[in-house]
Amino acid sequence: MALNPLRGRVAYIFDEVNFDVDQIVGVKNIKITDVEELAKLAMQPYDPDFAAKVKPGDLLVGAGNFGYGHPHYPPMKAMRHLGITGVIAESFSPGYWRGEISMGFPQVSCPGILGFVQRWDELEVDWSTHTIRNVTQGTEIAFEPPPQSDAEMIEAGGLVPYLKRQATEQRQQKGSEHVQGA
Amino acid sequence: MALNPLRGRVAYIFDEVNFDVDQIVGVKNIKITDVEELAKLAMQPYDPDFAAKVKPGDLLVGAGNFGYGHPHYPPMKAMRHLGITGVIAESFSPGYWRGEISMGFPQVSCPGILGFVQRWDELEVDWSTHTIRNVTQGTEIAFEPPPQSDAEMIEAGGLVPYLKRQATEQRQQKGSEHVQGA
Repeated sequence: MALNPLRGRVAYIFDEVNFDVDQIVGVKNIKITDVEELAKLAMQPYDPDFAAKVKPGDLLVGAGNFGYGHPHYPPMKAMRHLGITGVIAESFSPGYWRGEISMGFPQVSCPGILGFVQRWDELEVDWSTHTIRNVTQGTEIAFEPPPQSDAEMIEAGGLVPYLKRQATEQRQQKGSEHVQGA
Repeated sequence: MALNPLRGRVAYIFDEVNFDVDQIVGVKNIKITDVEELAKLAMQPYDPDFAAKVKPGDLLVGAGNFGYGHPHYPPMKAMRHLGITGVIAESFSPGYWRGEISMGFPQVSCPGILGFVQRWDELEVDWSTHTIRNVTQGTEIAFEPPPQSDAEMIEAGGLVPYLKRQATEQRQQKGSEHVQGA
């Protein structure tokens, strides 16, 4: 298993503990399914020019228990559409974590991240050494490796491709057992 | 699905953020596999009389990112042996959460829990209403429902019985499809 490193700028820092991601698109817009429309609404309360500033590869940073509340997919669908490739937070809400990992969206649990970055710092997340390098500041911080199955799910691109891959591997294993047994 | 409510006293409050559960038995004892021995070592640095005070059903309370560090099973095996039936924390480390849920050990993510309890308060965790009642103080606090699959894993008693149950259900479904198709 080899997860691709994440490389990008800190596009935004959500410094609120127990941050509910619904607020990114606005609670009243949470039923919208069109991702273009969601992307237009995203971040309006925080930075109306966000869409113009963000670049593909950029990352979000969060505080403790990031993703608290009912886990809804539209906010991060909008963020991915805008180019965001992952979230690094002090800690995560279990429901949010599970949901976004099952979408194959990288999440990094890193106590101390809030004191480690400023907005627009350039970061590199190295999964093999479990370190985040702040390229702008020339510093490093360790992070918690995700559970193995979560890392595999991120690498596969989400729950559905992950399960398909597992099924294929099982079939191949059975096939080779059959050959051995013949 | 109906998870049994948790009912017990707050046997200990770990108020340290990023608490590494290895400290419960001591890092140097983490390779011990005998649960009786682990139970004797447990909580020595925090409360040497813990084993005499704890009662079956009691709960542990933790701070933010509870379970940070390499997820090892011995500390909570020792705690379960002493009668502990679950952990309520401000938030959890993803690796710890995944590991203990796969053991069928109830974990409750509840921002605000530290300010809501004192040691030895009697609590009731109601999964159906997502509330924790502090029987001693006569107060209530809402908690985040766990992801559905995690709730099912707790109810089944862990990952292995959960997968067995799913396999049985799939076989039964196939059987009934076969009958319908006949």
